[in-house]
Parts: sequence; structure tokens; C-alpha cells
Amino acid sequence: MPGIAYLGPEGTFTEAALRALDANGLIPSGGESITPIPTESTVAALAAVRAGEADFACVPIENSIDGSVIPTLDSLADGAPLQVYAELTLDVAFTIAVRPGTRGTDVTTIAAFPVAAAQVKRWLAENLPNAQLVPANSNAAAAQDVAAGRADAAVSTALATERYGLDTLAADVVDEANARTRFVLVGCPGPPPKCTGADRTSVVLQLDNVPGALVAAMTELAVRDIDLTRIESRPTRTGLGTYMFFLDFVGHIDDDSVAEAMRALHRRCADVRYLGSWPTGDVVGAAPPPFDEAAAWLDRLREGQP
Amino acid sequence: MPGIAYLGPEGTFTEAALRALDANGLIPSGGESITPIPTESTVAALAAVRAGEADFACVPIENSIDGSVIPTLDSLADGAPLQVYAELTLDVAFTIAVRPGTRGTDVTTIAAFPVAAAQVKRWLAENLPNAQLVPANSNAAAAQDVAAGRADAAVSTALATERYGLDTLAADVVDEANARTRFVLVGCPGPPPKCTGADRTSVVLQLDNVPGALVAAMTELAVRDIDLTRIESRPTRTGLGTYMFFLDFVGHIDDDSVAEAMRALHRRCADVRYLGSWPTGDVVGAAPPPFDEAAAWLDRLREGQP
Amino acid sequence: MPGIAYLGPEGTFTEAALRALDANGLIPSGGESITPIPTESTVAALAAVRAGEADFACVPIENSIDGSVIPTLDSLADGAPLQVYAELTLDVAFTIAVRPGTRGTDVTTIAAFPVAAAQVKRWLAENLPNAQLVPANSNAAAAQDVAAGRADAAVSTALATERYGLDTLAADVVDEANARTRFVLVGCPGPPPKCTGADRTSVVLQLDNVPGALVAAMTELAVRDIDLTRIESRPTRTGLGTYMFFLDFVGHIDDDSVAEAMRALHRRCADVRYLGSWPTGDVVGAAPPPFDEAAAWLDRLREGQP
Amino acid sequence: MPGIAYLGPEGTFTEAALRALDANGLIPSGGESITPIPTESTVAALAAVRAGEADFACVPIENSIDGSVIPTLDSLADGAPLQVYAELTLDVAFTIAVRPGTRGTDVTTIAAFPVAAAQVKRWLAENLPNAQLVPANSNAAAAQDVAAGRADAAVSTALATERYGLDTLAADVVDEANARTRFVLVGCPGPPPKCTGADRTSVVLQLDNVPGALVAAMTELAVRDIDLTRIESRPTRTGLGTYMFFLDFVGHIDDDSVAEAMRALHRRCADVRYLGSWPTGDVVGAAPPPFDEAAAWLDRLREGQP
Repeated sequence: MPGIAYLGPEGTFTEAALRALDANGLIPSGGESITPIPTESTVAALAAVRAGEADFACVPIENSIDGSVIPTLDSLADGAPLQVYAELTLDVAFTIAVRPGTRGTDVTTIAAFPVAAAQVKRWLAENLPNAQLVPANSNAAAAQDVAAGRADAAVSTALATERYGLDTLAADVVDEANARTRFVLVGCPGPPPKCTGADRTSVVLQLDNVPGALVAAMTELAVRDIDLTRIESRPTRTGLGTYMFFLDFVGHIDDDSVAEAMRALHRRCADVRYLGSWPTGDVVGAAPPPFDEAAAWLDRLREGQP
Repeated sequence: MPGIAYLGPEGTFTEAALRALDANGLIPSGGESITPIPTESTVAALAAVRAGEADFACVPIENSIDGSVIPTLDSLADGAPLQVYAELTLDVAFTIAVRPGTRGTDVTTIAAFPVAAAQVKRWLAENLPNAQLVPANSNAAAAQDVAAGRADAAVSTALATERYGLDTLAADVVDEANARTRFVLVGCPGPPPKCTGADRTSVVLQLDNVPGALVAAMTELAVRDIDLTRIESRPTRTGLGTYMFFLDFVGHIDDDSVAEAMRALHRRCADVRYLGSWPTGDVVGAAPPPFDEAAAWLDRLREGQP
Repeated sequence: MPGIAYLGPEGTFTEAALRALDANGLIPSGGESITPIPTESTVAALAAVRAGEADFACVPIENSIDGSVIPTLDSLADGAPLQVYAELTLDVAFTIAVRPGTRGTDVTTIAAFPVAAAQVKRWLAENLPNAQLVPANSNAAAAQDVAAGRADAAVSTALATERYGLDTLAADVVDEANARTRFVLVGCPGPPPKCTGADRTSVVLQLDNVPGALVAAMTELAVRDIDLTRIESRPTRTGLGTYMFFLDFVGHIDDDSVAEAMRALHRRCADVRYLGSWPTGDVVGAAPPPFDEAAAWLDRLREGQP
Repeated sequence: MPGIAYLGPEGTFTEAALRALDANGLIPSGGESITPIPTESTVAALAAVRAGEADFACVPIENSIDGSVIPTLDSLADGAPLQVYAELTLDVAFTIAVRPGTRGTDVTTIAAFPVAAAQVKRWLAENLPNAQLVPANSNAAAAQDVAAGRADAAVSTALATERYGLDTLAADVVDEANARTRFVLVGCPGPPPKCTGADRTSVVLQLDNVPGALVAAMTELAVRDIDLTRIESRPTRTGLGTYMFFLDFVGHIDDDSVAEAMRALHRRCADVRYLGSWPTGDVVGAAPPPFDEAAAWLDRLREGQP
């Protein structure tokens, strides 16, 4: 009964992502049902995995509005190695939750996690212009605040609205259409899921501080026609101006081209931290080229049978 | 009397940065004294420049713990062009401010801007373990909260402590030594400050979505021995998986090598937004190579005098 | 009355090339008629220019069967600088010349320059199977040998056949169709001919002996979309295994992209010898990209008018 | 009793090279003594291998004065595949051979292979200024001419001087010190000799005719730190301006880095003809980097044991 840590309390988007990962069979649970373990932060969820208190953690890693989720990246890059095994992308759409019987005109205070508040700012200005924002610790906590009477309405999730016995004043609320968040399932290092043909590989590079070091590393991907889908520099915490680099690219460590590129990065970089290879479900870029034909040709040369 | 917008209220780190920029003669004020204009956010400060309500804005762009300041980057990349004219880096160190007469043992509530709270978490746990955190809207607002009696202590700045007539319970408080924030002075497009030999140039690239496009763009810098000091991918807001890239590099648009590289980026990229060339005071990487000797050689060839 | 040195005696392909260059107005003769000066070798023709005994030399540089003409390349690379001003390509086709009255069945000996003999070997085997080859010093000398009665037939040129009062036994004789030779007009360094939009630039590179030095130099052309049309390594005469490199590419030193690339090669290589920029008449590859639009964009940035 | 074709007649430098290859155990003869088979040209020697009339051919491929031996390159690139198994470099130094009793002052005619004549031109001008050159078909044939009384002296080899019962008028004659010729042993395709750590690999590339194609191919070597020791473009015989490229580099097809590079070239080029991997005896450049450590690292990642 694998335990999966996630940003709680119950009812967060992260829990919804966790449920969806499970429903899609993306959690290596050995057929057993899972046990969600709420934690107070995404960093705490990853710490629970490192400490052996959870088998996996479900954490947000990127969203289409704010970019990378920095605490997740930093926690993956530092400390004992962790590895990503699956991912899932959810549309971001909030539910405005109220206690049964509350009408829009009754709302004078709205509890909201600040990140969520920023994403529905325009909607609130148009639909609840006189209500005052009250900060909450998570989307689920906002619903709890309403259930406890500390606010009239909450910017929350469908799951939390249901969990805390609230009513839906408005559904699918979001200022910016197409806002989505990508969640990943993280565990301790192990053999990656099998190559599916639609996979993502992720690494963290430490580079020697010389001009051209990053472009040289990226060239190792480019010459092998590997599609880099994301790059992010993050300060190394040793001082302003030194960076590590998070790179995502299309393909699996068992693809010949990706294996070659990984070996090359290992040779060229001060350090390469492997964050895993896992299926993306849909193809997210140009698939890595197959090397089979070239390998067979090489074998023939070695045998003297060109 | 140039007006300079900044994240207010009075007493924020940003105001301290603004004062330091002015004291160092880095604000093109034509000799007049400046007028600070507090705004409610960094985005609002930049909007004031675009609207003609301020001549410049002073905004944080990067700190050594959290990386890029995303709202600043996004606001620079979207909308009417803006341009950076100067930068200044401040050590991040907080002042714990109290009303005169308050002792540490008296403190049961501490007002703090959440970002600041995260940076002094360990110090608070060790020194004020029983005090409860109360969220504030800025470091200066935390001091106001104390002045108004809404909290016993504030995680604030030296400047705000002085402004609001508070006492210093502890100075230079920060969990992580060497934490620093870099601020930039932003105005409407204009001729950049003169080349000093220790300059930074910054651009935002939009690239065609093909494998190798980013490495090709970066190669234009690498072949000219231009030192890339920062790269950041940000979603373009049109969907998860499409990115724009913020690049900082050493040198000035009037350096021949940088000029060549800029022309090359313009040819190669779907769009290049120039964020300016400005002095960094200290050299922050490898200076761009001079091209004078090669240019003189070429001139001789053209005249038939090799 | 400019003197033009060429591989003599009268009647060689080189003289035919020289006549064609003149007829096409490609010799910078200032309107005066030219004076051909026969020399005993292509190296001697180039030496005559260096010694001031000729204004220009017309020499073969490449043919489609044997590749580069090594003595020409080596002579251009060593000694006082020379520069190419024009080129012309001739189809290679021999004339079998005989004294008036001689029939094919009369031919028992054939004078031939060995290089020419190799190019008509099959034709001779089929048409004059019993004739014996006698070596001659040039295609023209072969005709002289026939005129002087030292051989019955000559593998020669149309021009020499006419000059020495011989008859044509067979015309347009060549084993391999499409054989062509490219000739160049070489003088002392001077301003190159004007850029025509269909030009060739040629350089000789000396590189530091480190892995990747050549590819780094060639990358300077590739990033600027300059079309490399030929590369030739030649030993430096200081020992087996050290090389200089002859590169031809499309474009003129006055093309912005070529100018940039030349400056870059000068920075990157131990030595760059410029062999000239000159019109090719027809476009011989992909024209270098114009940089005007990018330069205008850069100017606007510098003036603060993006 | 393996038959080895070579440019005859007996006594050429090529025969000397063949004897030296055999003495050094570089001919895969299975312990049997070899049978030299003289041919009339290097092209004929290679044809004898293709026709099954010889097991191997010994042919010159490069010399330090004239560069590549074009007929050897062209013959290796066209027709049925051949493969190089060994190489040997000889200092070029001629013997001036005379019939017993002949003194320098007696010499009025000198037989010489034209290539050899060019390499001793200065020596002849200084030492035998009045003697007239008579062309010969090879260095050995020049000695035969003297033995048969058709000339007084021969520019020949030590081996031929001995074979044809001549005396040595002068030894070690050559204008340019350090002149050397590299010979290769060529056979039908087969498993290459074992990797020795000091090996050479050679290929012929056909590239699509687009700007940057060559630099892209060479980048595949450069990114793997493979040391390119020679590059030669040769016309493809289909027309002036289209080329194939001969590349030599340090390393053996069984080196991981070379194997990777070969697969990459196969993917990237229109055609790759493998000319073999063979020992050079001495290291001739920077050895290819070992990939073992990186491969072991990758294996650990795949097993989940970073």
C-alpha cells in the first residue's frame, strides 16, 4: 500500500493530480491501492520520500503562467538523488466555494491562496468587486476557512468544495484561458519506466564557469537531433552569478541517441544529475532519431562485410 | 526633477536600492534631485514608466536565493519596450524592528512579508521560537504594522525601521549568508549609457519551435567569445511548452563583437527584444574580445595593402 | 600594354583561357591591348608577376578530373602575396593535330603532354591502337613536335593546331565528357574587383595544431550562412602531418557577411592569407545573406528607437 | 603465399615499402612468405586486388611535398570497396645510379621518373649541370634504362641500383630535406587489425550539396574530441564544383568514441565509405577519449543505482 506524499490538506489541485495519476495507472503501486499522505509543502513532500516516510511524492513542477515551480526544482537538485517516474498535466480552473445558502451579494470576504488569487484577479474584480481578499495557505485551506466561517467565499478546487461540504458559487473560474499545471511523481532512484516512444528525460547540469560551456553541452543534444524542450538556469546558492541548468528533452535513456547524449554530457559537465526518463503520454516534441540502422552498418564494417 | 517609481511603501529594500543608485550617480537625472514614487508592486512601477507617470522604475530582477523575479521579467518582455539603464546589487539583511521598549521576550507576533519570512525562518526559530508570523504586504508594511500596534515585531529593513520611528531588536538578520538582490533602473527606450568596459547586455529571444534553434542562437554568442552569464526560459503564455528566453551576456551593444552578435541574433530569431546595455561597475565575466585589429586587417585587404 | 604571363609555348589551353579572359573584358588592362608572355611553367608565370616582369599571370587552378593544380596552389600560398582578379572555365577537349596530308593510318607516333595523354587514353586505344606515345612538355609543344617532324600526330589544342600550320585529324577528343579546367588571373595585391553578387573569395588558413581547430574555423563561415565551395588540405612542407587549408566560398569581401567571417578567421587562425574576391560570372552556390536589415535594426537600437 | 601487388618494376620505392612492411610483420600473411607482384601503376595494383589476382596492394597515398597521391585516392573511392590494413612511412632519398666505372664527368644523359626529377632538380643543377634529362616510367625503369645503355645515369633507388647491378654515384639525394612518403597496404574488406591505441581511421564522405553540410559532419568528430588529421576534397567526376571528402582521424573503429562518430557520419552523410582502421605505430595526434567511465555511469543510471 504505497504512500504518496503531496501538498495538503485534502482537496488541493495536487491531490487531484495524484488521484488522476492513480486512475491512469501511472503510479507503480504493484496493484495495491495507494495511501495519500498530505504534507505542508512540496518540499516537505519530497523530504518524506528521502526519509522513507513515503514511497512517492506528487508535486507541481511547472505551470503555464508562472513557469517553473522553484521549490520543486531546488529540492530535486539538492540532497539525496530523487527520480521522476510519471507526469500529468491538469487544466487550472478554480471553484468559488461558499457555505450552502450564500449568494454572491452576501460575499464580503474571500479566502484565497495568493498564487490562486493572482490567477482569478480579473474575475473577482468583475464578479465580486466589493469582497476583500483574505490570505490562505493553500486552495484547500481556503475552503476550510469558509467551512469554519472565517471567510464568506473561497477561491478553491472542485475536490475541496466537495470534501468540505460547500456549494459551488462559480466553476471553471480563471482569468487566463489555457492555464495548466504539470505535476510529477517522484521517488527514490530506480530503473526508469519502460521506453514508450513518447518520453521525457530531465537532467540538472553543473558546468565549469567558462564562456561557451553551456552551448557546448547543448550542442551534444543538438548534434544528435534531440529536442530540448525546456532550459532553466538557477543560482547555485553559492553566490549571484553561478548557475546550474535544468534541461528537459524528448526521449528515454534507453533510446540510443539519448544514451549517447547522456554519456557525452557526463564527459563534458562538472556534474550531471539525472532526474529520470518517463512517459509523457502524448508526444511533446520531435522524437529522438533511431540509431539502429547506423549501428547495424557499423557492425557490418567491424565484421568486414560492408 | 525625475520621478522614479518603486515598490513602496517607504522603507523597502527597493527604496534602499533606489537611494544607492542615486548616491552612486547611476540615475540619468540631469543633475536634478529625484522624486521617489512608491507603487504597490514592481509591475505597477514598470506600468508607471510606460504610462509616462514616472521617468524610471527601480525594480528587483534577480536574487541569489530565489532566482529571477518573475513579474519583473514578464513585464519587461510584454507590452511597450522598456530599457535597463543601470543596476545595483544589495546584500539582503533584515532588521528586526520593534516599538521602543519592546524586548525579545515581549514578542508574540511578528509581521513579515512572506518572502522575507522564508529567508529568516531559521533565525526566528532559534531566537523567537514562540512568536507567531503575521503576513504583511512588504518589508516596509511590516514595520508599519508594528508602528500601528498590529504586531509586536517586524521582519523589515534598516530604512523602514528608521522611517517609522522603531527600534532595532536585531540587525543583519538572514539565514543564508551571501544572499543578495540585484536591482535594475528601467526607463523608456533611449541611447544606452556609454560603454565602460564592464557592461551587461540583456535580450529576450523568441525562437522558432525547431530542435536546435536555441543552441544555434547561443552559438552566435559562443563563436564570438561572448560570455553568457544567465539564461532563463519562460513560458510564452500561449501554452505549456512554448518558451521565450532571457539572456544576459557580458559586453555593450557598442562593442564590435556584441554588435555582430546582436545582428546575428536578429537574423536568426523570430524576435529579439533588446533590454539594454548598461554598466555593471565590476566586471562580471569574460570581457568580449576586441575586433579592432581584425577590422584594421580587413581594411588593409580591401585597399590591396595586406 | 599589360603583360600577361602564361604557360607557353603559344597554343596551350592556358593561352586559350587568357584570350577568352581578354575577350570577356576580365583583364584590368585599362583599355590597352595585352601582351601575352609565355613561360615554361605555371610556377614561372607566377614568379614573373612577383618579379614585376608581368602584370598578371593566367594559370590553371582546378580541373574536374584531377582536382587542384598543386603547383599553382603551393605557389599562391608561399612567398610574396598574390591576388586573384578573375576566373574562367574552359571545357577540356583536345585536337589531334597532324601535318597536312597525314591520314590516321599513317600515324605511328603521337606526341602528348602526359596529363593530356591520360585524358584521351581510351580514345587513342580505340582510334589509333598501334601508335606509340612520345612525351611532350605541353600541349603546344606536342604540336611543335609534329610540325618539326619528330612525331606523326599530336594530342594538342585547336589554337596550337592553327598556330603551327597543322591539320585537324579529330576535334573535341576527350575520354570523360564534362571535363573542364578553371583558370585564374593572378596579380599583385590591390583593391579587388567590385562586388557583383556572383563572386568567389579564397583564403589559405594556417591553424594551430589542436583537435577542432579546423571545424572551429569552418563554423565561422557556417554560422554566417556562407557557402563553402571547396576545401583542400596541403602539407606545409615542414613535415608530414601538418597542413594548411585552401578554402573557397561564395561571396565578396565587401559583402557584410563575408567581411564578418574574414575578421573572425583572422582572430581564430594562426594565419589567414587572402587570395582575393572576384566575379564568377554565374552564381556557383548559395549567395551570402544580406545583413542590411539587421544592421539598420541595430542602428535603431543604438539610437533608442527600436 | 599471399601475393602483394605494387608499382613495379622491381626496385621502386614502393617495393622498398613493401619489403619494410613485411619485415615489420605488418602484412597479414598467416606466417607465409609473400610474393611481390609488380604492376604498371598504382591503379593497376588496386585493380589486381579487386580482381582477386593479388591478396593485397602496396601503394603510396601521401607525400610530404606533393600531398595526396590522387590516383590512389580516386581508386579507393570508386568501384568495389577496398580496405587499408597497414601503413609505413619512408624517407624519400634517391640514389644516382651508374654503370660500374662511370664517373660524374662522364654523365651526359640522366634517366628519371618526372616526379623524381622534380625532387632532385636543384641537386642535378649543382652536381651534373650539363647532363640532359630523359624521361623514364618509374624510378626502377630509370635504372633499367642505364643498365640497357639508354642513359648514362639514373635518378633511382638503392634497391633498384642493387637489382640492376649498378653502382652508386651519389646516395641520399633529395633537394628538400624531410621529404617522406606514406604507403598503405590495401586489401578486400575484412575485420580490421586489432585496436592498438595508436591507430588511424579513414573515410570518404559524400555530402548533400547544402551550405554547412561539411562543417556539420566534421562537428560530429569535434564534439567527440576526435582528432582530424587530414581532409581532402576531390571532385566527384560528375562536374566541377561537387566534391567528395577524404578524412583521416586518430583512433580505431573499436574505440567507443570513433564508433559513435562513425554512426553519426552514417546518419548525416549521403554516403560514407569506410577505408579502414589500422595501426600507425607511433601516435600521430590526440588519442580519442575513452568512454568507459561515462558508459559505466549510464549503466548505473539505467539500473537505478546512481
